[in-house]
Amino acid sequence: MSLNSYGHLFRVTTWGESHGPALGATVDGCPPGVPVDEAYLQQFLDKRRPGQNKNMTQRNEPDAVQILSGVFEGQTTGTPVQLMIENTDQRSRDYGEIAQTFRPGHADITYHQKYGLRDYRGGGRSSARETAARVAAGGLARAALKELAPGIEIKGYMTRMGEMEIDRSAFDWDAIDSNDFWIPQGPEAAAAWEAYLQKLRKDHNSVGAEIEVVCRGAPAGLGAPVYGKLDTDLAAAMMSINAVKGVEVGEGMAAATLTGTENADEIFMGENGPEYSSNHAGGILGGISTGQDIVVRFAVKPTSSILTPRKSIRMDGSPTEVVTKGRHDPCVGIRAVPVGEAMMACVVLDHLLLHRGQVGDGPRGTIG
Amino acid sequence: MSLNSYGHLFRVTTWGESHGPALGATVDGCPPGVPVDEAYLQQFLDKRRPGQNKNMTQRNEPDAVQILSGVFEGQTTGTPVQLMIENTDQRSRDYGEIAQTFRPGHADITYHQKYGLRDYRGGGRSSARETAARVAAGGLARAALKELAPGIEIKGYMTRMGEMEIDRSAFDWDAIDSNDFWIPQGPEAAAAWEAYLQKLRKDHNSVGAEIEVVCRGAPAGLGAPVYGKLDTDLAAAMMSINAVKGVEVGEGMAAATLTGTENADEIFMGENGPEYSSNHAGGILGGISTGQDIVVRFAVKPTSSILTPRKSIRMDGSPTEVVTKGRHDPCVGIRAVPVGEAMMACVVLDHLLLHRGQVGDGPRGTIG
Amino acid sequence: MSLNSYGHLFRVTTWGESHGPALGATVDGCPPGVPVDEAYLQQFLDKRRPGQNKNMTQRNEPDAVQILSGVFEGQTTGTPVQLMIENTDQRSRDYGEIAQTFRPGHADITYHQKYGLRDYRGGGRSSARETAARVAAGGLARAALKELAPGIEIKGYMTRMGEMEIDRSAFDWDAIDSNDFWIPQGPEAAAAWEAYLQKLRKDHNSVGAEIEVVCRGAPAGLGAPVYGKLDTDLAAAMMSINAVKGVEVGEGMAAATLTGTENADEIFMGENGPEYSSNHAGGILGGISTGQDIVVRFAVKPTSSILTPRKSIRMDGSPTEVVTKGRHDPCVGIRAVPVGEAMMACVVLDHLLLHRGQVGDGPRGTIG
Amino acid sequence: MSLNSYGHLFRVTTWGESHGPALGATVDGCPPGVPVDEAYLQQFLDKRRPGQNKNMTQRNEPDAVQILSGVFEGQTTGTPVQLMIENTDQRSRDYGEIAQTFRPGHADITYHQKYGLRDYRGGGRSSARETAARVAAGGLARAALKELAPGIEIKGYMTRMGEMEIDRSAFDWDAIDSNDFWIPQGPEAAAAWEAYLQKLRKDHNSVGAEIEVVCRGAPAGLGAPVYGKLDTDLAAAMMSINAVKGVEVGEGMAAATLTGTENADEIFMGENGPEYSSNHAGGILGGISTGQDIVVRFAVKPTSSILTPRKSIRMDGSPTEVVTKGRHDPCVGIRAVPVGEAMMACVVLDHLLLHRGQVGDGPRGTIG
Repeated sequence: MSLNSYGHLFRVTTWGESHGPALGATVDGCPPGVPVDEAYLQQFLDKRRPGQNKNMTQRNEPDAVQILSGVFEGQTTGTPVQLMIENTDQRSRDYGEIAQTFRPGHADITYHQKYGLRDYRGGGRSSARETAARVAAGGLARAALKELAPGIEIKGYMTRMGEMEIDRSAFDWDAIDSNDFWIPQGPEAAAAWEAYLQKLRKDHNSVGAEIEVVCRGAPAGLGAPVYGKLDTDLAAAMMSINAVKGVEVGEGMAAATLTGTENADEIFMGENGPEYSSNHAGGILGGISTGQDIVVRFAVKPTSSILTPRKSIRMDGSPTEVVTKGRHDPCVGIRAVPVGEAMMACVVLDHLLLHRGQVGDGPRGTIG
Repeated sequence: MSLNSYGHLFRVTTWGESHGPALGATVDGCPPGVPVDEAYLQQFLDKRRPGQNKNMTQRNEPDAVQILSGVFEGQTTGTPVQLMIENTDQRSRDYGEIAQTFRPGHADITYHQKYGLRDYRGGGRSSARETAARVAAGGLARAALKELAPGIEIKGYMTRMGEMEIDRSAFDWDAIDSNDFWIPQGPEAAAAWEAYLQKLRKDHNSVGAEIEVVCRGAPAGLGAPVYGKLDTDLAAAMMSINAVKGVEVGEGMAAATLTGTENADEIFMGENGPEYSSNHAGGILGGISTGQDIVVRFAVKPTSSILTPRKSIRMDGSPTEVVTKGRHDPCVGIRAVPVGEAMMACVVLDHLLLHRGQVGDGPRGTIG
Repeated sequence: MSLNSYGHLFRVTTWGESHGPALGATVDGCPPGVPVDEAYLQQFLDKRRPGQNKNMTQRNEPDAVQILSGVFEGQTTGTPVQLMIENTDQRSRDYGEIAQTFRPGHADITYHQKYGLRDYRGGGRSSARETAARVAAGGLARAALKELAPGIEIKGYMTRMGEMEIDRSAFDWDAIDSNDFWIPQGPEAAAAWEAYLQKLRKDHNSVGAEIEVVCRGAPAGLGAPVYGKLDTDLAAAMMSINAVKGVEVGEGMAAATLTGTENADEIFMGENGPEYSSNHAGGILGGISTGQDIVVRFAVKPTSSILTPRKSIRMDGSPTEVVTKGRHDPCVGIRAVPVGEAMMACVVLDHLLLHRGQVGDGPRGTIG
Repeated sequence: MSLNSYGHLFRVTTWGESHGPALGATVDGCPPGVPVDEAYLQQFLDKRRPGQNKNMTQRNEPDAVQILSGVFEGQTTGTPVQLMIENTDQRSRDYGEIAQTFRPGHADITYHQKYGLRDYRGGGRSSARETAARVAAGGLARAALKELAPGIEIKGYMTRMGEMEIDRSAFDWDAIDSNDFWIPQGPEAAAAWEAYLQKLRKDHNSVGAEIEVVCRGAPAGLGAPVYGKLDTDLAAAMMSINAVKGVEVGEGMAAATLTGTENADEIFMGENGPEYSSNHAGGILGGISTGQDIVVRFAVKPTSSILTPRKSIRMDGSPTEVVTKGRHDPCVGIRAVPVGEAMMACVVLDHLLLHRGQVGDGPRGTIG
């Protein structure tokens, strides 16, 4: 049992602190024979990397991932893959005040209360930098999915940022990669989102966000009763991301407002198997995939590090006000998009392997 | 690795099908010396039991829990506790049609696709009857919590059912146990909820619900980075309950709409340690408890088994219409309240044990 | 993490005490579609059952196994299989003295020191009766192996009992089932073993034993680096059996006395793939099966419960002498044979499933 | 579930190949507040390091361990500790022949059969170099034990090497560190062992060894029924070391030859609690420590890489003869001593944490 690990057969353990020498992911259980190299993984790291545009923190880390083990002559060997990212932009500074102060909304106080000591440099282990390791592991998962289930496509995008919300009637899958917010909308929407965010930044404020991640092309049958459900694992995966406060599958929290007649996804026989009139279920029934799109949403709270003073206390109990200068994203939700994709990739691959182990490769129950 | 298990040190494995001879929970890792007997556990089973009132299915199971192991002379021994509930109300009937048909919204089709065969009697393993085993295990967790952390109180209640929503300005903690819906409201509200639900039932319809579960009195320091976070485990626990489609901690999905200044829980020094100006975080920072109330919400979809016909297919692919007669709750959310409480109890106990193992019993970081 | 469980994908959790109402095994991860019923499992229980012959304790338990879940219409469904054995021969007696006394060689004293209380009736959880649950689970594993790898045969036999040792030059595989000791020898040897054991019994003594378990027909490729090695899991499985003090694979402890030239298993190309000049390795190289016989041996200490008085202390520290009357096998090693077979079956099935999950069903590296 | 991990709460995952850029151990679950630095760990690495004397391979790796995470200002923080060792002595060479050939006694053939490809450079993942990572993790475990249970002492030594065997009547605990073989004997014995080994080396041969590891000062109560037994975990830990073929606790395999009267460890009341007349049990009863010395032995097979030609085949099935030149220990058992100590340290620490989690810090059952 490792508390810094996730996955059943594709098992990812992340390690490292924000301002230590390096951080990374130890991945055990990657299938052998998967073609992968550092350049392939780097594209996902680059998507998450700070400093790309003015809507992100200007901290300038190359976030170059190194493969230290488990890959030989361009292929995975079936042994643990160590993915390491060196921390290169650790500005030397005076941590005197921050070492004694608990920043509101941060894990400073709870780490102190739990462990009696903490790496106070940039949040240490609780920093969102940890998600770089997840993205590296997610890249490896995608490489394996390309081999095992080439029809699978995984895509994340923002659906809400404070007052801004996407217009689902104008949903444009192809636009996602063309704007700074990974929104499935045209350039005008992106411009409006940017104006909104820059206004917040100038106001020394920050804002929350909602991200949706979709997996297309996954076969029916992934997942397992009753605590290894696909949605259970997805909920855990997304909730484990820094600052996430809610996770939804399909209708999500809105399911509480629906009636049974409204919520039913009726079933028809299509040319290639069962089809559904709708996808309120988010592609999962009884914890097992239906073959429809797997749809997960999660909400990220506003960045706690803001320039507006917030009241807090020091370790000695004395009152203080915290103004977090540093380099911080006004909306961490932007960076959460590739992280959510990475978690989806890891969970789906893991369940593909689990299914193969427990049930076998061949077709099980056929219909029609 | 067991896919029908949850918990790290307090490890619960549930087993059994809706219409098999029995179902139950194998609980490993319960601390020794905990006073418990069947009568203590039974009170929680009785809260969840069908047939209590007309807002529930009239299936009449006594749901009597038996302790088969791990308890000696009224105390747990530290060895596995086997909790068994016999299925006594298995009406004999003709399953011919249901054996061939996939009920929309149920796991019939996905179990068939995954396994190639399924126990079609009443949903088999995917039936909500499985949650009786969770409630039994949750009772054991509560007994252990009484010994290890007697100040902890865990309470669940409905906050929404379709169009009905609680009035938080009239929140009444003491009213929860006095009405059929476990709502923290007076008898008038309960009457309105009942009228609403009975109308839906007569319309051959059902409805979703939102449940909130609160843990009061938990110490600061429970939880662990970064995939053994307290909220990660709570999200998994709640999402694993049948029909749940969303999980929230504190602000939940609404965090996406807030700004950093709005969302900040400012910290002050109180007489007994840190206090907070608010609890947007739901009592958890960086995955570790703050000592505030731990607040989790989840949404349950409407009962899929309704008397209104829904289109579906048979195993041979032929079209059909499904009308689910049988005995079904028009709102499974009512019964989900004690289940949510049970999961909270198990997760909190588990993290108390984990904390003790990894950090020790004594105080770690003190403040002031 | 469950401390009463073993296996990765085929996960067995045993529960129950010697004199409680029942004991059993909760098996998660059995593949679906395996034909099995109680009669099939019972044959393995019967082999282990006490009271069969005068070389065993005369305690007369039918040890009837019941399948409570996970099997439907004669086939496993892929959901947890609950195997329960009721304890029917719990003689009522006065436990006054035994409740206060620590029997030498038993876990009485360590359970007391660890937990502060213990089920003192017949050893409670530490009784060898727990192995009945393993044998039931092993029967299920054998049923699954028949489907997944029908060429596999698993057989255990005694190789030593005190001064008696088998003559490997007269090894007779077919004789194993024809004598009370499961020795691969003719009736004369069995008679000599019986005379030796009855002499010890009359002398109020007991004796240890060595058991060898062989798995024939397992494919090459089972096992995994470096802590999920096939021999690592076998060592843990066998050492977890009551009274076992040593485990060997292939040459075992004798490997310490060999030179490299003596120990080499040279490789040749046979008609159906690689063949070896010898099997010092016991069928495992680098933790992975070679396709040869998998050979494991383990030693069981003499029954600690004997009629010869042994010095000990009571809970209050006062000195006493213990004479264990009751019904006890003079050589628990006889009963350990089916237990060792069960553990081998569980481990081999588990690694077949793991291999399928991590590497896939199809052939990987071929030779020639 | 990770197949390259061991431990329950103190969870070690090793990664890396013999000739890759680096190898190491990811350690999750180390308690916070443990003083440790690289110099402390290095002393254990140095004990295992090749090239120290002429009885070891002359491969000259500094084996310098780096701490990349989890330690801050000289103390562990409770977050994952990454221990990395760079491979600096990777001689460039032509692997043409070795890439196609299976060395007898090595995992070349089984890795090929399992995975379809392998890192053939120096054994890749199956190389004994992997044990350097274990030794680093074991050093961390020792640092934690010093804090949690300062009375514990762990020591390993050779007890047999081919025809050479220690004289237990001349057992000298203090001599262990004074000779190249870690034998508890005086310089004359060490000289005889050296002469024996050099003779074998000149004969192009190698030899097996038996190592005993003792843990003194562990409290009673460590371990857990029935598959988390202390001896079960020790058996798995030792069997997972490269080339190990047998594991014994206390009497070990010899238990098969003893009678019940001979084997009994009688119990007396001493000044500080129970004392025993002997330690046939090796300090473990029912899987739980008694407070006596915990005694484990394991046998290592002779080095398979020898200069004497052995018959084998190539990947294409053609016959060949293998002469392993390279730099190889004539007796890998020497190097296995610190590895066995490291595994003992990890297992004992893990069970201390487990006991604390499941039962608590305070005293449980007292005697007298």
